[in-house]
Amino acid sequence: MANPVLVEVTRGGVVESVHRGAIAVYDADGGKLWEAGDTERPVFPRSAVKAIQALPLVETGAADAYGFGDRELALACASHSGESEHVELARAMLAKAGLDEAALECGAHWPNSHAATVALARAGGAPNALHNNCSGKHAGFLCTCRHLDIDHRGYVAAGHREQELIRDAMEAVTGAAHDDAHRGVDGCSIPTYAVPLKNLAHGFARMATGQGLGRERAAAARRLMGACMGRADLRLMQAAPGRIFVKIGAEGVYCGALPELGLGLAIKCDDGAGRGAETIVAALLARLYKADTALSSTLMEIATAAVESRVGARVGEVRPTAILT
Amino acid sequence: MANPVLVEVTRGGVVESVHRGAIAVYDADGGKLWEAGDTERPVFPRSAVKAIQALPLVETGAADAYGFGDRELALACASHSGESEHVELARAMLAKAGLDEAALECGAHWPNSHAATVALARAGGAPNALHNNCSGKHAGFLCTCRHLDIDHRGYVAAGHREQELIRDAMEAVTGAAHDDAHRGVDGCSIPTYAVPLKNLAHGFARMATGQGLGRERAAAARRLMGACMGRADLRLMQAAPGRIFVKIGAEGVYCGALPELGLGLAIKCDDGAGRGAETIVAALLARLYKADTALSSTLMEIATAAVESRVGARVGEVRPTAILT
Repeated sequence: MANPVLVEVTRGGVVESVHRGAIAVYDADGGKLWEAGDTERPVFPRSAVKAIQALPLVETGAADAYGFGDRELALACASHSGESEHVELARAMLAKAGLDEAALECGAHWPNSHAATVALARAGGAPNALHNNCSGKHAGFLCTCRHLDIDHRGYVAAGHREQELIRDAMEAVTGAAHDDAHRGVDGCSIPTYAVPLKNLAHGFARMATGQGLGRERAAAARRLMGACMGRADLRLMQAAPGRIFVKIGAEGVYCGALPELGLGLAIKCDDGAGRGAETIVAALLARLYKADTALSSTLMEIATAAVESRVGARVGEVRPTAILT
Repeated sequence: MANPVLVEVTRGGVVESVHRGAIAVYDADGGKLWEAGDTERPVFPRSAVKAIQALPLVETGAADAYGFGDRELALACASHSGESEHVELARAMLAKAGLDEAALECGAHWPNSHAATVALARAGGAPNALHNNCSGKHAGFLCTCRHLDIDHRGYVAAGHREQELIRDAMEAVTGAAHDDAHRGVDGCSIPTYAVPLKNLAHGFARMATGQGLGRERAAAARRLMGACMGRADLRLMQAAPGRIFVKIGAEGVYCGALPELGLGLAIKCDDGAGRGAETIVAALLARLYKADTALSSTLMEIATAAVESRVGARVGEVRPTAILT
């Protein structure tokens, strides 16, 4: 059965395009708060689980050994846009472990930010692996390898110790099997495992509360979530500092955690559209924070985006459907 | 009811994302050859109907008056990517009518081509309205106004004579009402009218055959289609020179015409994804040309696109579903 239409894109008075998707909201006990669509089908969370993938960086003691604070931990959990500030921070993280960008196996691409791309081209530059949106995460992986004194070469392969540490953390937090049948290769070359949305939501409720993670992992999770919420440059997280954690993944995924509500959430826009996923997650947060009318209304504003012509006229909008409101 | 899944995007052995959509294939008598999904719902064809929107340029005699050949007519029907060759040709078309880019009301944007964007930025440049992917179409509009000796200012507005000429041509060719309720504003500021896919397909069968258009319009249609097919830089059209006309529109639309088969086609990817629309139209063409096994197999290769990691490894694919094969 088709998942419901969660987002409409209008032009004039006509619906031009639609986005279908699924939503799971769970608490740390695995109790379902709300669902829409099929939440049992495994989906690749991609970059949405970077905070879970960063657990070994903290748990092994690597983050402390290299003196990483919130800035570095937030970058390890982030998808950055290739701005020079983030490029330099990833470079500095590698330098702490005696490495440079040659050690990165994520591949190079032009910055995700159009402005950063234009600035780089104007300066006569070209992108290297530090501009890859995942370079902070990879710098964290490499620092973990160095701290554990294991050969970092090939650290992106499924059989490498670093990826095994990550897979073990992902399995423990989400409770979903991370086997070969569910494995794909992410854009940055590391394994990504398809996980049902309900497990991702449950896992992020654990990340938010520490419940069911054990003392040490709970502390690592708290530290990582705190770093991300403290350094948030996303409107959604800035709307309620320290209260909302969300992270986008490629192909229309978001995972999130709401510490004060003890909830985790995961959404997938079926067709992989970022604009669809952004509207779904913002409208979902507005719904979950309905009791806080000011916050809920700010979130609903974010959920509705203008479609503009090339001269900047508002000619339509991207908006949530009634299911979400 | 939901339209069928026409495209799957895989990663490893898992389907990561899907694209739903609708397809209409009609002949010039309005006879249905094949349909999938809802073809009655009006959809904005956007740039996919540029060849129909260019009819007044030829029919008014403007194209001849300014000495336009296939290059200029093809650009008037095209969505270019901001390469300097196309920017300069649009500039030259305007110059023939005594105008420059200041007359363009389409707005500016960075080239659709990433390479052209980087080249422009490296040269210290910034985009103007000539880089707009629609600048050739707008140059044609402006030349038509000048040739008819009407004030070109405000030529993008629904009430302007130029837009009325275009709307009349669109109504005559597609047989669908172009009224206020179906009107939106396109990215380049001109009106775009939502039209059922079946009407768009029927209209392009008429464009391909001239049937039902009258002698003068049929000649203009033949000239425009010929110019486009002769100047095609699209793999789909290069696969069978002179036999396939297709044009993409924003938000996942393609219209097409197959002169030798006497058919027109129109497709819409529900969520507006370009990658979905590209796979749908290529697989549809492969199906329609099944009798030509070499061509059909080339088209099916185009229909299946690699999903690559940032180091260029093939980690999945975008492929048509069984409905299309």
